[in-house]
Amino acid sequence: MPIIAKNLIKISGEIVATYDKYGGINRIDGSNLPTVSNVVEILDDFMQILLPGYFGERVPARSNMLFFVQRTIDTLFLKCMDEFTRACRFSCKFQDSSEEACEKFAEESALKIAEAIPEIRQMLKMDIRAGYEGDPAAESTEEVILCYPFVYAIATHRIAHEIYKMEIPLIPRIMSEWAHRRTGVDIHPGARIGKRFFIDHATGVVIGETTEIGDDVKVYQGVTLGALSFPKNPDGSIVKGGKRHPTLKDRVTIYAGATILGGETIIGEDSVIGANTWITSSVPPKTLVTFQEQQKYRSLER
Amino acid sequence: MPIIAKNLIKISGEIVATYDKYGGINRIDGSNLPTVSNVVEILDDFMQILLPGYFGERVPARSNMLFFVQRTIDTLFLKCMDEFTRACRFSCKFQDSSEEACEKFAEESALKIAEAIPEIRQMLKMDIRAGYEGDPAAESTEEVILCYPFVYAIATHRIAHEIYKMEIPLIPRIMSEWAHRRTGVDIHPGARIGKRFFIDHATGVVIGETTEIGDDVKVYQGVTLGALSFPKNPDGSIVKGGKRHPTLKDRVTIYAGATILGGETIIGEDSVIGANTWITSSVPPKTLVTFQEQQKYRSLER
Amino acid sequence: MPIIAKNLIKISGEIVATYDKYGGINRIDGSNLPTVSNVVEILDDFMQILLPGYFGERVPARSNMLFFVQRTIDTLFLKCMDEFTRACRFSCKFQDSSEEACEKFAEESALKIAEAIPEIRQMLKMDIRAGYEGDPAAESTEEVILCYPFVYAIATHRIAHEIYKMEIPLIPRIMSEWAHRRTGVDIHPGARIGKRFFIDHATGVVIGETTEIGDDVKVYQGVTLGALSFPKNPDGSIVKGGKRHPTLKDRVTIYAGATILGGETIIGEDSVIGANTWITSSVPPKTLVTFQEQQKYRSLER
Amino acid sequence: MPIIAKNLIKISGEIVATYDKYGGINRIDGSNLPTVSNVVEILDDFMQILLPGYFGERVPARSNMLFFVQRTIDTLFLKCMDEFTRACRFSCKFQDSSEEACEKFAEESALKIAEAIPEIRQMLKMDIRAGYEGDPAAESTEEVILCYPFVYAIATHRIAHEIYKMEIPLIPRIMSEWAHRRTGVDIHPGARIGKRFFIDHATGVVIGETTEIGDDVKVYQGVTLGALSFPKNPDGSIVKGGKRHPTLKDRVTIYAGATILGGETIIGEDSVIGANTWITSSVPPKTLVTFQEQQKYRSLER
Amino acid sequence: MPIIAKNLIKISGEIVATYDKYGGINRIDGSNLPTVSNVVEILDDFMQILLPGYFGERVPARSNMLFFVQRTIDTLFLKCMDEFTRACRFSCKFQDSSEEACEKFAEESALKIAEAIPEIRQMLKMDIRAGYEGDPAAESTEEVILCYPFVYAIATHRIAHEIYKMEIPLIPRIMSEWAHRRTGVDIHPGARIGKRFFIDHATGVVIGETTEIGDDVKVYQGVTLGALSFPKNPDGSIVKGGKRHPTLKDRVTIYAGATILGGETIIGEDSVIGANTWITSSVPPKTLVTFQEQQKYRSLER
Amino acid sequence: MPIIAKNLIKISGEIVATYDKYGGINRIDGSNLPTVSNVVEILDDFMQILLPGYFGERVPARSNMLFFVQRTIDTLFLKCMDEFTRACRFSCKFQDSSEEACEKFAEESALKIAEAIPEIRQMLKMDIRAGYEGDPAAESTEEVILCYPFVYAIATHRIAHEIYKMEIPLIPRIMSEWAHRRTGVDIHPGARIGKRFFIDHATGVVIGETTEIGDDVKVYQGVTLGALSFPKNPDGSIVKGGKRHPTLKDRVTIYAGATILGGETIIGEDSVIGANTWITSSVPPKTLVTFQEQQKYRSLER
Repeated sequence: MPIIAKNLIKISGEIVATYDKYGGINRIDGSNLPTVSNVVEILDDFMQILLPGYFGERVPARSNMLFFVQRTIDTLFLKCMDEFTRACRFSCKFQDSSEEACEKFAEESALKIAEAIPEIRQMLKMDIRAGYEGDPAAESTEEVILCYPFVYAIATHRIAHEIYKMEIPLIPRIMSEWAHRRTGVDIHPGARIGKRFFIDHATGVVIGETTEIGDDVKVYQGVTLGALSFPKNPDGSIVKGGKRHPTLKDRVTIYAGATILGGETIIGEDSVIGANTWITSSVPPKTLVTFQEQQKYRSLER
Repeated sequence: MPIIAKNLIKISGEIVATYDKYGGINRIDGSNLPTVSNVVEILDDFMQILLPGYFGERVPARSNMLFFVQRTIDTLFLKCMDEFTRACRFSCKFQDSSEEACEKFAEESALKIAEAIPEIRQMLKMDIRAGYEGDPAAESTEEVILCYPFVYAIATHRIAHEIYKMEIPLIPRIMSEWAHRRTGVDIHPGARIGKRFFIDHATGVVIGETTEIGDDVKVYQGVTLGALSFPKNPDGSIVKGGKRHPTLKDRVTIYAGATILGGETIIGEDSVIGANTWITSSVPPKTLVTFQEQQKYRSLER
Repeated sequence: MPIIAKNLIKISGEIVATYDKYGGINRIDGSNLPTVSNVVEILDDFMQILLPGYFGERVPARSNMLFFVQRTIDTLFLKCMDEFTRACRFSCKFQDSSEEACEKFAEESALKIAEAIPEIRQMLKMDIRAGYEGDPAAESTEEVILCYPFVYAIATHRIAHEIYKMEIPLIPRIMSEWAHRRTGVDIHPGARIGKRFFIDHATGVVIGETTEIGDDVKVYQGVTLGALSFPKNPDGSIVKGGKRHPTLKDRVTIYAGATILGGETIIGEDSVIGANTWITSSVPPKTLVTFQEQQKYRSLER
Repeated sequence: MPIIAKNLIKISGEIVATYDKYGGINRIDGSNLPTVSNVVEILDDFMQILLPGYFGERVPARSNMLFFVQRTIDTLFLKCMDEFTRACRFSCKFQDSSEEACEKFAEESALKIAEAIPEIRQMLKMDIRAGYEGDPAAESTEEVILCYPFVYAIATHRIAHEIYKMEIPLIPRIMSEWAHRRTGVDIHPGARIGKRFFIDHATGVVIGETTEIGDDVKVYQGVTLGALSFPKNPDGSIVKGGKRHPTLKDRVTIYAGATILGGETIIGEDSVIGANTWITSSVPPKTLVTFQEQQKYRSLER
Repeated sequence: MPIIAKNLIKISGEIVATYDKYGGINRIDGSNLPTVSNVVEILDDFMQILLPGYFGERVPARSNMLFFVQRTIDTLFLKCMDEFTRACRFSCKFQDSSEEACEKFAEESALKIAEAIPEIRQMLKMDIRAGYEGDPAAESTEEVILCYPFVYAIATHRIAHEIYKMEIPLIPRIMSEWAHRRTGVDIHPGARIGKRFFIDHATGVVIGETTEIGDDVKVYQGVTLGALSFPKNPDGSIVKGGKRHPTLKDRVTIYAGATILGGETIIGEDSVIGANTWITSSVPPKTLVTFQEQQKYRSLER
Repeated sequence: MPIIAKNLIKISGEIVATYDKYGGINRIDGSNLPTVSNVVEILDDFMQILLPGYFGERVPARSNMLFFVQRTIDTLFLKCMDEFTRACRFSCKFQDSSEEACEKFAEESALKIAEAIPEIRQMLKMDIRAGYEGDPAAESTEEVILCYPFVYAIATHRIAHEIYKMEIPLIPRIMSEWAHRRTGVDIHPGARIGKRFFIDHATGVVIGETTEIGDDVKVYQGVTLGALSFPKNPDGSIVKGGKRHPTLKDRVTIYAGATILGGETIIGEDSVIGANTWITSSVPPKTLVTFQEQQKYRSLER
């Protein structure tokens, strides 16, 4: 046997040895987790139903939409059931009771997300309209759907948020991370976002888990709605949970590059936050915060 | 029929009902718009001709380049004709005269964009050279073409801008958004960009529709060349059109994270704008604007 | 022959003419460079071995891991040898001695990178752990691997950095640019990064070639570790090489949007740099640099 | 330009010249004929509906069959309409009246073939049963469907024959030729075949256009049901049309390699034709024709 | 709803109704049978190991064959286990005892077939050699492997026969039918075939289940080794099982188109059967049966 | 390590051992032979040029045929050069002189086969016409091209025969075997076939290497033009080479299942050979050989 082959055999043995030594980061003998590609397929099916003709296979104009939707919903339901079940087996509130309770929960959740589609569609239509009205460069809603990445980002969020609310683990985060990769917009599925939301030049945006956003809010590129420094437990580990991200009331506008931090920070109705500002305390309604004035709204430095 | 099936049938009916109720965001019975995947194919063909051997299928060294180019140009021309026609049918200046005028315009435009390739190639070569000379880490122009995302971004822009100038709708924006997704650089196809343009660490850059950029300009990551707040019509809707984005004269350098806003803002020749600054009024030639001095160049807060 | 055909033949001739005129950006008759798709395949193989079950094809739980690893390592080794050889023929320290020396070097390097896998895996496990502990929203290490883009970014970096240290040209940069495209995190393969590194909301991050980072460092979205303005040679060209990017000591934290520049800038142990700050000179250990205090740490404006 | 290239350009010109010279065998400027791949897709859809789970994508056991069938029927109907229209434009009885009459006929025929599916399925079930009962080696109907090529051949025939009866040109022959390629069984779509037909070791079988086959007929490999020599017109060309192939009455068995020729040749009920025989005149009912006795049934040598 | 849609809905309902009515030929609610595509994958893996470099992916010359074989064997073993289990659940001798017994049997069989590979390879090498020596047109064994369909046919048979001997149902027949489709050679997996077997112009050959073939036998196109008419049970159904096909002793040659029938028919050592003959009784050793003399060897007409 | 794994490791070792033991049937360390898939690609390219629009990708009606042909010819030429070179390195008349002579021969041959295309096309057009005129069921030449397998078989033969005449090894046989697999027609590339050749119901046909066929010959399914028994060398091995297959003069017709054998057997002009006959000696011109009369034309039984 040539010397190279011997070396490669030795290396292979060493690598396999690390699979025991550094466990927890290999899935080989372990549980059967949901996979990114399956979850992306589920997202694709949703997009096909939400915006037929724009995403997914081209639906022939002459085709019977009812057939198309029934078949897609059926497939979608089964795929959701499978991935939800995997996610639940990994960790969910019913995990400790019984396998059956877990699967029943997955099935019920899969049905519930299907039932939510008409409402998600209604929300999405309003978001798209807000995009058309909010950007002077947009010439039609068709252009917005075809060319604006925020459409993919907000559609994904509206789906992922519903699944998040059902307390299905992993799936919503895989979805939001996929939209993040595609658009540069990182919305945690836990964020609560009102009607007619629009992100212009959607990129480099971060919206944290416990953010709350009212209706008619408009956000530009590079905006962060994040957490202040995390409180720690006596043992030095970070305290998990709690409201850590800001609240934006109705009709707030946040210009490019602004950073708004902290769970107790509330931006009041109709306020406008200037570009590149850094805000860590609440702003009253109908206030214009310019770059010069931003210091007033910093409760706590770090 | 099992209960689940009945539920799914009911849900399907409700979804189809929303297709009538929330029209305008489904393309099912509607016009035959260009699709993202067709436009991306067109872009791929362009890249193959502009930078043969780096993008697209590997061109055999021994092959007759003439055959390769003729065949690719032929295909490209036909694809452009198809998608341009679709875009024009949706909305173009000839749309109201006649179907024929529309198709003739699409064909003429497809020929014109093919004719523009030699010049686009010349521009691109200068851009790549600027990239090589502008980054101390770059060791060869080959490395720049293979590893620098700005090459894809600027090549796409130079193509999309030509199509934009011909007043073909939708197509240029689908192209620029595709480059945005791939590189994180969002250049509106309307922007006019001079020779030897270079974006270092190309990511998170936004360049608005009416921006004008001179020769030998260099820009870093996170730079925004954007609009100030949009003037509104009496009915509260945003005024569409008009010069809304800044002008950069020859040899200007803009460091990372700087934001330059407004249609009347002009950065003079040879000026340097420091990182993280926020500029809303004009800067004279040969000026160094540091972070500390940025306040001088803010005409109008918001 | 129709008029359109004649035009296209004429255009094709003009394009081919530019291949001679604007040489250097077409690879047609030229050297046989590594290709992006081959290098991405190599990265995929690495990911399969580093995090089996999470990336790449699903490995059946019942499969013999030794077989899987041996076969993958064998393929990986051969692919590395091929692409390393291509890169070395283009430019490497042995290029001028002889073809054979070049190939021998490529083979040795391919073996060395295979040997490095167990250690890379150990590093990666610590990075993932740091991600889990550093983000209150993370509920398991599985979630971190599946949903956090920084895992892909840091894994790619740890591989690319090893290849960079061997002085193989082009390959490491193609790898890092691929991770950049996928995650928005742009780490130059030259950067030296210590243990337990974590980038939260990994996006819009730039880490330059000569950056040095200690252990237990945590960085947020939009952070730049970059160069100050580049010194020029008497002929006006930029001086290549030299330490141009900052040094971060152990346990440093850099909040979102901060920009730290310059090869002599050192951030001391346990220091915290506030969000949106702009730092160009050194910061002592255990210092909190707030947005208000950032001016102290600006040695040199530009 | 290298000499080889010049040669290839010259050759290309000569080939293109033959496209004018030897017209009629290139379809380039010509009519828009049905394509083999589209017709095969139609066949695949039929097979999926006729034998769900055995052919085509695996239908999940839990899926709602109604959704599956509706969607597949819808797609099938649209594809049939397209290809039937193409075939009709090429040549059909309505071709000379008007484009519209042609399309209307295609649509009606597409609906009729969909309507025929339940009956085709019933026929097919009986054929499969006959296969199971007729072969001592068959252990289950599942084995017959999975392993016996005659199932594909007869299913294709039963579909193609229906389309043939509607006088749609080209399509039925493309279908039967496809089945021929896959199975070695060449049944002209014009052949009329009764219930419970079985071909054992289905290969090398030829069944001509005007053949008539009763119920419960069984045929072995290598059997030909063909035409005698073709009568010629005064100008020497072959007379097209007319009954040229034999008739097989109920419960006839034809052993391997037998050849039965002529439009007036009738094999009577319950007769058995021995292997390798060659029959050109009628055989009375309940007759066993051995190899030795075959001479009696040769009316006309050639 | 348009009239066409209503029609299609009605038709769909009728089709679904036939799934209940004509059960037994749809697999929808039924057992989980092996699929043709999985079994073909298994065959492909076998071919890759039996004739590496000729079938399947190209194995790089420099690759370590041990790694390649180990990985392929591992995959092959797992795939066999899965499909064997499915086949056994459908029907096997352990099916009635318990699920576990069934799975254990599948696993043991999968291991046994892997163990048989070296011997199968040895047999195959002799077959290929026989092909080279038996055909004056063959110029090398490489040509035989690349261009002679009998290689695929006999390799498949040698694998399928081993699985048949283990009494795994369905799988061997799916394999042999696949080879039949690809080559026109239909060898039942039950046939026992000696060393150095060669089929020249392999096409249209049928070899029945209980055929026995000695060493150094050579067969031409169109040969049938079949059954005489099948004895029937009192109820008219065919008697299943029993020796129904002929026995060929060592060094027999059968020329093109010959048909040899019956379980008691034995062709003695070194005998030669002429083309197009039809034999139904035994032939002594060292006999030349010409077309004229064939009548002597017909015991029983039908 | 589990017991199964140990077994599989042991088996793998044994298999690899057979690669040494039974060499000559594995290509692993061996020469770089042409592959079936590459040769099939070459065939596909030929078909695209010979019958554009019927085979291969659909040629857009509006496309410039010259571009299409130039590009395809260029690719075809390069692929032929590669595979011819591989075949020549394996064995050709220049193999023993030098590597260079071998490659030059491959290049010249690749050019010659390209030059032969116009003539092959002319031949093919006549064959297709003969098919249309010879079958009363054929309704158009389009139907013949789309639905008659003989078109693929004869087109392949006309190409393969040209390459055979140039004495390129392996390639012509791989081509003819591919056509055999697809159509059931096995024409050795050495056979010399005149103008206007037609095979009706093309299947189960075997035409040997040294067969000569005149103009206007028509053949039916199951016909064999083969060799008598092969003369042997004193050592028992078969004598390779020599005229072993029959000659058919102009306007001969051979009905289904006829077998004509022997290198000295000549079927005279205008003769008709009846179905299922077996002929081993010459037949004078204008003779009708019926099944009864066949004995006259058997010189030598075996």
